[in-house]
Amino acid sequence: MKIERVTGRLSLRRTIETGTEEQRRAVQNIIHDVRTHGDTALKMYTEKFDQVTLDSLLVSESEIEAAYKEISAEMLAILREAAANIRDYHERQKRESWMTTKEDGTILGQKITPLDAVGLYVPGGTAAYPSSVLMNVIPAQVAGVKRIVIVSPPNKQGTLPAGVLVAAHELGVKEIYKVGGAQAIAALAYGTETIQPVDKIFGPGNIYVALAKREVFGQVAIDMIAGPSEIVVLADETAKANEIAADLLSQAEHDERASSILVTPSMKLAIEVANEVQKQLETLPRKAIAAASIAQYGAIYVTDTLEEAIAVVNELAPEHLEIMASEPMHLLGQIRHAGAIFLGRFSSEPVGDYFAGPNHVLPTNGTARFSSGLSVDEFVKKSSIILYSEQALQEHGAKIAAFARLEGLEAHARAVEERFK
Amino acid sequence: MKIERVTGRLSLRRTIETGTEEQRRAVQNIIHDVRTHGDTALKMYTEKFDQVTLDSLLVSESEIEAAYKEISAEMLAILREAAANIRDYHERQKRESWMTTKEDGTILGQKITPLDAVGLYVPGGTAAYPSSVLMNVIPAQVAGVKRIVIVSPPNKQGTLPAGVLVAAHELGVKEIYKVGGAQAIAALAYGTETIQPVDKIFGPGNIYVALAKREVFGQVAIDMIAGPSEIVVLADETAKANEIAADLLSQAEHDERASSILVTPSMKLAIEVANEVQKQLETLPRKAIAAASIAQYGAIYVTDTLEEAIAVVNELAPEHLEIMASEPMHLLGQIRHAGAIFLGRFSSEPVGDYFAGPNHVLPTNGTARFSSGLSVDEFVKKSSIILYSEQALQEHGAKIAAFARLEGLEAHARAVEERFK
Repeated sequence: MKIERVTGRLSLRRTIETGTEEQRRAVQNIIHDVRTHGDTALKMYTEKFDQVTLDSLLVSESEIEAAYKEISAEMLAILREAAANIRDYHERQKRESWMTTKEDGTILGQKITPLDAVGLYVPGGTAAYPSSVLMNVIPAQVAGVKRIVIVSPPNKQGTLPAGVLVAAHELGVKEIYKVGGAQAIAALAYGTETIQPVDKIFGPGNIYVALAKREVFGQVAIDMIAGPSEIVVLADETAKANEIAADLLSQAEHDERASSILVTPSMKLAIEVANEVQKQLETLPRKAIAAASIAQYGAIYVTDTLEEAIAVVNELAPEHLEIMASEPMHLLGQIRHAGAIFLGRFSSEPVGDYFAGPNHVLPTNGTARFSSGLSVDEFVKKSSIILYSEQALQEHGAKIAAFARLEGLEAHARAVEERFK
Repeated sequence: MKIERVTGRLSLRRTIETGTEEQRRAVQNIIHDVRTHGDTALKMYTEKFDQVTLDSLLVSESEIEAAYKEISAEMLAILREAAANIRDYHERQKRESWMTTKEDGTILGQKITPLDAVGLYVPGGTAAYPSSVLMNVIPAQVAGVKRIVIVSPPNKQGTLPAGVLVAAHELGVKEIYKVGGAQAIAALAYGTETIQPVDKIFGPGNIYVALAKREVFGQVAIDMIAGPSEIVVLADETAKANEIAADLLSQAEHDERASSILVTPSMKLAIEVANEVQKQLETLPRKAIAAASIAQYGAIYVTDTLEEAIAVVNELAPEHLEIMASEPMHLLGQIRHAGAIFLGRFSSEPVGDYFAGPNHVLPTNGTARFSSGLSVDEFVKKSSIILYSEQALQEHGAKIAAFARLEGLEAHARAVEERFK
């Protein structure tokens, strides 16, 4: 793992992946076909891309039953405990509608209303994670969303991974459709005979899924364009190299493009971590992926001071930040950009991926500068409420009319004045 | 104004404007040029599109002084009172970071951090509204954003409207740049010699601005793709036709594509409103725009019952909803989709545009189904906080490792186990 001395501030803001012109056009064509031909197009593309012919897109009860047979009782209990923790955390994010009243009769407020219907994209293959089902569905339920739809590309046997089905069923999700790719996003946005459209689409996917989400954005809402995952560990000389290395590798095993970075003022620690990464890498089942990730996107930045290390962290704006320092809590206030912050040596990042409660859907690729992890907020909308009394309008009407006229909007001014004719 | 009897539910979800292939390419070229040539490209495009040659992009102090001379003392006082109301409302939206602790030492929480830098696009020409400056800048300031940048296309005299400059200066905004169009969006997203990049871009604009925002989305965050404005009035037979007509016209004068709709179970009211609209239209300075808007996008829907009228309103998911009924508050709970809700006859929509306090930047084009008006929330991000104690990890570590292994992520499991080696 390469070690680099950093003195000034780093500027590592990466560029977003917008796909090739060819990919964009392919996605536009798929969306067009789904809008025109509905289910027929979905099944056609499923044959083409997933190499399986489906009678029904909807997951059946017998598929759910079969999935349960693959999951141990112990694992089911863990899933349930994780779900309870996630629900507990997200309940705390929930906000109430509020109102404020004035003596002149004015009422102002904000009404919180859940979305009617949301769709969750669950990627296929090795990236089909039951934990993602928990992390996306539970905040929707806490928010009060009534209709929750899951779409995911079927495997060659024409079904979905057992863990995904069990997690969805545990949460009471009824609509699970075996369709993936841009065609699934098109179906969620525009609807087909089988799949009614939703209002917002969540979940990560490959470049085609990302481009399709970008394409339908506006017709429906989307959560974010997820990029490869990243971890930054901010450590001082008190941290343990073996633990840091293990955490860096847990990120690296996700994806060759995942990024694992240590920032520390300690050259001694830097060298130890580099050695530990090499050592632990050897026995990993996903060694090839992790090694490629570390080689290409891994880095150890050594700064002169802890202050400088913090500045580097803020430049990186990591998805996951671990602070392994003697007083991690004392540094919290200086962290301006991070999706999730893990404090101290027992807060290994996987704790947050599965179990602790906060969401693991987090802003990647430096977007923690301006965006947040998934939360209940993304499943509600706010409507402002304005009630003016006769007295209030009498007192302020002339000012409102004057402001409207400043902007050249005479009909706005007259609308107010019409009340007192 | 056309009157239509509606019996079933309406489905009026409109399609988003995604521009022509030619417009998309033009925008991509402009962005590329700004990224490559910086200020030179900005000035070149300003000459091309705004027909003015600028020495400096930054608005000077003497321009601000000149602007103040154009605004009356009375108008300045109104601006200040409006700003105070807007600030007061948005202060109530502000959220605090929170934490929860468990007896095993676990701390979970959510840290709220303001964005570092935001950019506000203020459209040019007749759509350059000082009220938009207030509505975008104040929530940013309440959130604690330190750097706020305004961009707006210069007029032929090479400056900006007095109202915009005074509003910006009143709020203490220092960086105001005379640049508009896709080139301004590119500058905000990628930066030039003069304009440092921001993290999120707010504000409406023409199709080129909208396409540019869509294009840079991911590199920076964007607020929303704004469409033409709309109002829906939900009224029963107790409402006054002249007031409804005036409010419909206040929307219609904005834009030929603006949409003004009355939904009522009263045919008598429907006919009266249609007549009133015709009458009031005659004397409006922006008669041509309002008439075109009413003819193309105006409608009066008559339902059998008030319940049905409410269902139609929810289908329309209007940006602005006025409820003019005998008991407007009683209907509030049934409104599922609306950007802002104005209750009773003295809550004319312009009250919210300028003065009451809630934001006037609202979801248009039916997007109130899934999105909200601008609020303090859009200027902060949330970081989740996880601190696990040794005791907590000892108790739950094996479960976390088991979950990781279910997902085939061995390095995740080992990261947890590494703590207890």
